[in-house]
Amino acid sequence: MNFLEEKILKEGRILSNDLLKVDSFLNHQIDTRLMREIADELRSRFHCTTVTKILTIEASGIAIAVMLGSILDVPVVFAKKSESVNSTDEKYVSYAYSFTRLKTFQINVSRPYLSSSDKVLIVDDFLARGEAALALTDIVAQAGAEVAGIGIAIEKGQQEGGRRLRSAGFRVESIAIIEEMDAESQTVKFRN
Amino acid sequence: MNFLEEKILKEGRILSNDLLKVDSFLNHQIDTRLMREIADELRSRFHCTTVTKILTIEASGIAIAVMLGSILDVPVVFAKKSESVNSTDEKYVSYAYSFTRLKTFQINVSRPYLSSSDKVLIVDDFLARGEAALALTDIVAQAGAEVAGIGIAIEKGQQEGGRRLRSAGFRVESIAIIEEMDAESQTVKFRN
Repeated sequence: MNFLEEKILKEGRILSNDLLKVDSFLNHQIDTRLMREIADELRSRFHCTTVTKILTIEASGIAIAVMLGSILDVPVVFAKKSESVNSTDEKYVSYAYSFTRLKTFQINVSRPYLSSSDKVLIVDDFLARGEAALALTDIVAQAGAEVAGIGIAIEKGQQEGGRRLRSAGFRVESIAIIEEMDAESQTVKFRN
Repeated sequence: MNFLEEKILKEGRILSNDLLKVDSFLNHQIDTRLMREIADELRSRFHCTTVTKILTIEASGIAIAVMLGSILDVPVVFAKKSESVNSTDEKYVSYAYSFTRLKTFQINVSRPYLSSSDKVLIVDDFLARGEAALALTDIVAQAGAEVAGIGIAIEKGQQEGGRRLRSAGFRVESIAIIEEMDAESQTVKFRN
C-alpha cells in the first residue's frame, strides 16, 4: 500500500459508494507534505517523458500542478471555469459535466498559453467519469499540442474515466486507484 | 526594484488605470519559479511570526499558498466560492464582492479546518479593494483564531484594500505595491 492509499484509509470518509470525502488533506484543506509526495511520485512515473507545460483545472488541481511544475521547472496553466473581465485573449473552449457540482462547466484556456510545440502533462486531484480530463485533452488538441500523459492523485476505478482515457490512447498514471468502496463499513479496496 | 516589480513591468499589461493583466505568470499561466520566489519573500517577511495554517481563496491564491505552506511545513486551507455535494461539514461563511467577476460571492470554510488555536497567515495573489481579504479575516474571527498577517503578491495601492486592512490593525505585507498605472503609456509606478 502506498503513501496516498494509507492517507485515504486514515483520513478519507466514504459518504456513499461513489463519494469519497478527502477534503481534510486534498481539496479544501491541503496537506502540503503530501502534495510534495504526490508531485515526487508523478515526476518519477513520467521521468522519461518530455514535458514543457502542466495543465490542470481550477481549483483543487492547482496545488499538485504547481508543486510538480516547480520540481520539473515548467509553467503551469490552469483552465478556468468562468471568464474574467481581465482576460482579453482568444480562448480554447471545451465543456465538462461535473457530477459533484451537478452542472456543465464551460472551461477555457487563453490561446497564448498553449502552443503546438507544447508537450502537456495533464494533472488533477481526482479522476472519476473523466469529464474534466477529457475536456483538457480536447483543449490540448485544439492547440495542436501533444498530451504527454495524465497524472492523477486518486482515480475512482469503479467509474469509467480511466477506461475512457486509456482506451483513447492516453497514458494515465494514478497514484491511488479505488476498486470499490463501501460506505456502510467504511472500507476501500485499491487496485494493485 | 524587486523581482516581482520587474516581472510586472516586463510581462504585465495595463488594460485600464484599474485593471492589470498578469495572467501570463500569476493567475492563469503560473510561473512556478516566480511562485517560489514569492513564497520565499513572504517567508522572510513573516519570519518572526508563528504560523500554524495558511488561508487563501480559490483559485489563483492557491499556487502561492501551497508553495509557502510547503516551505513553512503547515497546511493550507482554501476558502470555497460554492458548495460541493462532498462536503457535509458545518461552515464558516462570509461574503465578498468581486469587481473582476462583477458579483458577490459567498465564501466558506469547513469548520473542522480552522480552530481557535490557529495562527493564520492569509495569502492571496492580489489585493485591490480588500473584499476577499476582509472576508477571510472575518472567517478567521468566526473560528476564534488569530490573523498572523496578510501576505500579498500584488497590491493595487491606488485602491482602498490595503488601507482598510491596515487601519483595521492587520499586518499586510505586499511584495509589489502599485502606486499608479497608466493604460495609455503602459507605465506603472510602484510605492517605495
